[in-house]
Amino acid sequence: MRLLVRHPSVILEKITSRSKAGSAVADLFPSLRGLVKLDFSEPAVDSYRDCDLVFFATPNTTAMEQAQSLLDAGIRVIDLAADFRIKHIPTWEQWYGTTHACPALVAEAVYGLPELNREKIRGARLVANPGCYPTSVILALLPLLANRLIDPRSIIADCKSGISGAGRKASIDTAFCEVTESVKAYAVQGHRHLPEIREVLQTLDADADLVFTPHLMPMIRGIHATVYADACTAADRVQSLFEDYYRDEPFVDVMPAGSHPETRSVRGANICRLAVHYLASANKYVVLSVEDNLVKGAAGQAIQNMNLMFGLDETAGLESPGMTP
Amino acid sequence: MRLLVRHPSVILEKITSRSKAGSAVADLFPSLRGLVKLDFSEPAVDSYRDCDLVFFATPNTTAMEQAQSLLDAGIRVIDLAADFRIKHIPTWEQWYGTTHACPALVAEAVYGLPELNREKIRGARLVANPGCYPTSVILALLPLLANRLIDPRSIIADCKSGISGAGRKASIDTAFCEVTESVKAYAVQGHRHLPEIREVLQTLDADADLVFTPHLMPMIRGIHATVYADACTAADRVQSLFEDYYRDEPFVDVMPAGSHPETRSVRGANICRLAVHYLASANKYVVLSVEDNLVKGAAGQAIQNMNLMFGLDETAGLESPGMTP
Amino acid sequence: MRLLVRHPSVILEKITSRSKAGSAVADLFPSLRGLVKLDFSEPAVDSYRDCDLVFFATPNTTAMEQAQSLLDAGIRVIDLAADFRIKHIPTWEQWYGTTHACPALVAEAVYGLPELNREKIRGARLVANPGCYPTSVILALLPLLANRLIDPRSIIADCKSGISGAGRKASIDTAFCEVTESVKAYAVQGHRHLPEIREVLQTLDADADLVFTPHLMPMIRGIHATVYADACTAADRVQSLFEDYYRDEPFVDVMPAGSHPETRSVRGANICRLAVHYLASANKYVVLSVEDNLVKGAAGQAIQNMNLMFGLDETAGLESPGMTP
Amino acid sequence: MRLLVRHPSVILEKITSRSKAGSAVADLFPSLRGLVKLDFSEPAVDSYRDCDLVFFATPNTTAMEQAQSLLDAGIRVIDLAADFRIKHIPTWEQWYGTTHACPALVAEAVYGLPELNREKIRGARLVANPGCYPTSVILALLPLLANRLIDPRSIIADCKSGISGAGRKASIDTAFCEVTESVKAYAVQGHRHLPEIREVLQTLDADADLVFTPHLMPMIRGIHATVYADACTAADRVQSLFEDYYRDEPFVDVMPAGSHPETRSVRGANICRLAVHYLASANKYVVLSVEDNLVKGAAGQAIQNMNLMFGLDETAGLESPGMTP
Repeated sequence: MRLLVRHPSVILEKITSRSKAGSAVADLFPSLRGLVKLDFSEPAVDSYRDCDLVFFATPNTTAMEQAQSLLDAGIRVIDLAADFRIKHIPTWEQWYGTTHACPALVAEAVYGLPELNREKIRGARLVANPGCYPTSVILALLPLLANRLIDPRSIIADCKSGISGAGRKASIDTAFCEVTESVKAYAVQGHRHLPEIREVLQTLDADADLVFTPHLMPMIRGIHATVYADACTAADRVQSLFEDYYRDEPFVDVMPAGSHPETRSVRGANICRLAVHYLASANKYVVLSVEDNLVKGAAGQAIQNMNLMFGLDETAGLESPGMTP
Repeated sequence: MRLLVRHPSVILEKITSRSKAGSAVADLFPSLRGLVKLDFSEPAVDSYRDCDLVFFATPNTTAMEQAQSLLDAGIRVIDLAADFRIKHIPTWEQWYGTTHACPALVAEAVYGLPELNREKIRGARLVANPGCYPTSVILALLPLLANRLIDPRSIIADCKSGISGAGRKASIDTAFCEVTESVKAYAVQGHRHLPEIREVLQTLDADADLVFTPHLMPMIRGIHATVYADACTAADRVQSLFEDYYRDEPFVDVMPAGSHPETRSVRGANICRLAVHYLASANKYVVLSVEDNLVKGAAGQAIQNMNLMFGLDETAGLESPGMTP
Repeated sequence: MRLLVRHPSVILEKITSRSKAGSAVADLFPSLRGLVKLDFSEPAVDSYRDCDLVFFATPNTTAMEQAQSLLDAGIRVIDLAADFRIKHIPTWEQWYGTTHACPALVAEAVYGLPELNREKIRGARLVANPGCYPTSVILALLPLLANRLIDPRSIIADCKSGISGAGRKASIDTAFCEVTESVKAYAVQGHRHLPEIREVLQTLDADADLVFTPHLMPMIRGIHATVYADACTAADRVQSLFEDYYRDEPFVDVMPAGSHPETRSVRGANICRLAVHYLASANKYVVLSVEDNLVKGAAGQAIQNMNLMFGLDETAGLESPGMTP
Repeated sequence: MRLLVRHPSVILEKITSRSKAGSAVADLFPSLRGLVKLDFSEPAVDSYRDCDLVFFATPNTTAMEQAQSLLDAGIRVIDLAADFRIKHIPTWEQWYGTTHACPALVAEAVYGLPELNREKIRGARLVANPGCYPTSVILALLPLLANRLIDPRSIIADCKSGISGAGRKASIDTAFCEVTESVKAYAVQGHRHLPEIREVLQTLDADADLVFTPHLMPMIRGIHATVYADACTAADRVQSLFEDYYRDEPFVDVMPAGSHPETRSVRGANICRLAVHYLASANKYVVLSVEDNLVKGAAGQAIQNMNLMFGLDETAGLESPGMTP
C-alpha cells in the first residue's frame, strides 16, 4: 500500500482481511492516514468485479483456491505467496505438505522475475511473484550460469534476512526480545525456498543445485545473499560480464569491482545491488547480493510485474531511492 | 538528496564538501547510484551563480559567513543550521559561544515553520529552518497557546530523539556499541534548542517558558516529544480545537482522541503527528508529538519552505507516506 | 534463573509452567544448558513441600490464589506480580478489574523495596516485589520527599522502558518489526503502576500525587525515569542530601552532580543509578533514574528481598557489574 | 574489567591508557562505579613491577615492542592483539604491513586456544590470545579435521560478527546510523584472520585451506560462524564424534542434533556453542558456531588462559551464564 498510493496509474479499490474486516486501514497503519480511506472488507470473489488485478499477499494455499474464479472473471492475479512458484507439482506438494488445488494453473503461471521472464510476464494472466531469498540468489547467479562460468553443482548460498521476512503476526519467534541483538541460522536441513531456487536455476543449467542456509538478522528489512561457486573458466571478464548482463535492467545495480553492498542502500527501494568477487587462491566466485526483502523481494517486484502485465512504464511507482540512514 | 531527486521542479546543480571534494556523491551514498551523477565540489560562493537557492546543511556559523554574498547575487538561502533562528542576538551569542557575523540578516530571516509563518516564508530571501526538537515541541503547543488553554509558564517538554539528530560524523558518542540498547538524557542543564523554542513561544505569549529535556533513543530516525502543561480553562473542546487549528495543514496530522502516535508512522515522511490528552486528576494537558527529525525536523521542512518561497505546490516532493515497518 | 544459578545459598528445586510442563528448562533457554538440569513441571502446591521459598513470576491474580496454602505450609512467598502491592483493596480491584482473593494477606504483605522497608522485609513471610516503573520512580523521589524539598503534588514521572517489560509472549504489540526503530507513549490516561507509586509516595507524604507517562523504547532492558518536581526549599544541598540518603545502600548509586546516567550502565545489574539536577530558572528538580527493569526492577530485587528474608548477605548473588557494551 | 572484578584470585593493579591517563576508570565506564577505584595511568614498563601478568588489549604492534622487557622482569604476558598469533613471520609481516619487532618471541609464544593447546598454555610465559573469528571457526572444525571427516581444501567459513569486533573508537564506519538496520560483507578479498585460521588448521592437516568471508551484523556482541566442508567419509557418527571430542571441555557446548544455536545464548558468557549438520544431498557438513566475540572470542578466553598459566581453576571467574534476553 505504501508503494501503491504513490503509483500514478493505480486506484486501490479494496483491501480484504477476515480478521480486520470493518476496521479502517489507516487505524491499523497510521502511516497511511489521509492516503488510504478504505476499510478492510471480507474477502469475496464477487466483490473484485471492478478490479483489473488482485494481489494475493496471503498465507500459502489461499491463492490457489481463488485464482481460477478470478481469471474466469477476467481479473488478472499476482500471487506473492508460493502457490504458483514451483512447476513440479510433487515437489511443491512435498514441501508445502498439501495437495495442490489447481495444477493446470501452475503450468500457466509465469514466474515473475522480470530479469528472467520479462516477455512472458507481459502477456501473463497469472504471475507467481518470486520468494525473497530466491530473488536475491537467482539474480546473483544469472550472469554466472548464463555465461557458463561456474560448476553448477558447487553453489552455496549463505543468506541473511531481516525479521520482516517472517510476516506480520503474533509469534514468540519474532518477538523483539527474542531476536534483537542475536543472529541464528534456521532450516539448515531444508527451507521451502530451496526447491524454488533449484528449479529456476535448472531452467538455465539442468545440473544446477545448491546448498542454501538462511539466517535471521536483527533488523527489519533487507536480505544479504553471499553466494559461492567454483569457477570453471577464466575470470578476467567477470566484472564486465555482470555489467553487460544487467546493463538495461532498471532494478539491478552492479557495483564497481571490489565493492561490498550494504542492505541499507536498498532500504525501501526496488533494487537488487550486486558485487562480484573472484578469489584466485580458491578459484571461486563470491557474489554479494542485497535487496529489500519487502520490495524487490516482494511487493516492489509485484508492482514491477503489474507494470509489465498492464503495459505501464516498468518503473512506475518504483523510482524512490533507498532510505539512508 | 533522497527527497530532492524525486522533486518534480528541482535540478540538483552542485553539492559541496571540503573533505569530500572530488569524490562522487554516489560513492559515499550508494543508495543514490544512478540518481545523482554529481561529484562533491569545493564550496565557493562564485560557483553557485546558476543556482536559485542554496541549502546550508553545514555546521553552525558557516551560513552566516556566506549568506550575504549569496543574497547579493540574487540567490535565496535556507539555512538548516542555527545561524538565523534566534532573533535576540545576545541570546544567540551566549548559546553558540561566538559573535554573530551578520545581525542584520538575522532580522530579515524568516523562521521557517510554515504552520506559523507561511505568508512570510513565501516572500523570504532567507529562511532559518527550525531545529528538530523545536518543530515537534512548537507544533504540539501552538493550539494550546493560541487558544489560551494553558499556563504558559508551566510547560515541560520531555523529548526523545533518534541518534541521527547528532549528525553524521566520527564520534565515540554516537558509536553503535555506545548508544544501542540504551537510553540517556543529556544537556539537562540547557540545550541550544531551549532558547529557540522559548523565543518562538514568546511570540505567541510573552510569558511562555519551558523546561526542555532531550534524551537519546537507540534508533536512527524519529523524535517523540511528550509535552506537559497545566490547564487553565475547561478542556472539553481540546480535541476539536486541535483538529480545527490544523485542518488545512498538509503536514500536521491530529490523531483521534486517546491515541498514542508512534515515531515509525512518520519514518521518512514530512509529517508531524499529534495526539492531545487531558488528565483530569492533574488538570494537565499532555501532547504527544512525533516527527522524523531528518524530514519534518530538517530536510523535508526545508523543501516545504523552498516550495513556498518559489510558489510551487507546498507538498511537491513530499507526498510519500512513512515507511512502516 | 540466570541470577539464581550463581547464588551461593540457593538450590533451584522446581520450576513450574503449565504450557511447558515436561520440557527441559535448558531447551527453552539454551543459555542455561549445563547449569539447570530441571524440567518444567505442572504447578501444584503440594509439590513445593521441600522448598523454603516460592517466587511467583506469574500473571497477575495467580499468586493470590495460592499464597495462603504455601504460607500455611510454612513456605515463604515473593510475588513478582501485582497481587500484593497495593494496600487499598478497592483501588487494586478497580485497576486490576477483579475481586481480590485474599485481602487479609494484602495487609500482611510487605512492599519489597529494601531502601524503604528493609527491616519489615527481614521478618516477612510474604513480600510484594515492586513494579519495575515504581522502583525507578520511588527511588528517585525518596530523598526529595523525606527532606521535604518538593511540592508533593507537582510530580511528573516521564518513564522510558525497554520492551522486556511487557513479558515474554506471542504478541503483535511486541513483535520486532512493530517496536524496533520506534518510540511511543502508552497508557497516558492511566497505567497500573500509577496507583502503586502514588500509594507508596503517600506513606511518605499524604499529599503526594503524580503524573506518570510510560513510553516504549526499542531496546530489551532498561528503564529511564525522568522525574520532575517543583522545588519548595533551597536546593544548594540536594546533591549531598542524595548522597547521604543512599550512602549505605548497596544497590543505589548517586552519580556526581551534573551527570546523565545511561541505562546500559546497569544492564544485567541490580543497581538503580541516580543523578539529581536543579533547574534554577524553573525552580524545579529533575531526577534521572536508571535501572534494569528485569533486575533491580524485578528478579534482582526479588533476590535482594530473599536475601533479607533468610538472613543472607543482602548482596549475595547480585554482585556482578552491568554488562557494557 | 567486568570479568576480572569478580574473579576470586585477581587483583587489578593498574590499567594504562595514554589518552585517558589521569581519569578514573569508573568515569569512563560507570558500570564499574564502586568496583574499580583505579585511574588510568601512563603505560610504563617499570610500573608493572608488582604485577604477575600483563594483558595487552592494545592495537596491533604495541605488545611486540614491550613483551621482551616484561618477560625479562619475570612478568607473564597475554596479548589480545595479533602480534604473536602467526608463527610464519613473512606471512605476519605481509598481512600486518610492518617488520616484526621480536621474531624470537613469536617462536616461544603459545597460541592460546585451550581446546587445542591446553598443556602448552599451562607452562607458557607468553600467550597469543586467538582472534575472535578464528576461535569460532577453529572450534567448529577441530572434530572434523581430527577425525579426517572432510576434504581439508573445501572449507568455507561464512562469518557474521557484531559491531564490537571493530573495537571502541570514533569512526564513521561503526557509527550507529551507518550500521544499524543493515548487513554487509567486508574484506571479501582477504581479512587478517584468514592467515591465522589457515596456519592453525594446517597444524592439524597440512592441506587445510579455506574461504573466509566476514560480515557485519547490527548488534553489539556475538559471532555466528557458518562453516561448510565437503564430507569425505560416512557421516553417521558425526554428532557423537563432536560430543566425544568436546565432552570434557568446560567452555564448548555441542547442542543436540538438528539444533540452531543463537548468539544471544552466549551473550556475556565464555562459551562456544556448536551444532553440526550433515546435508546428504550435497554431501557436506555445515557447522554452526556461536560465541560472544568479546568473551570466548577475546577477554574471557584471555582469562581462561590466565587461569591455566597460573594453575587456577580453569573456570574461575567465567561461570556466569549468558544473559538472555
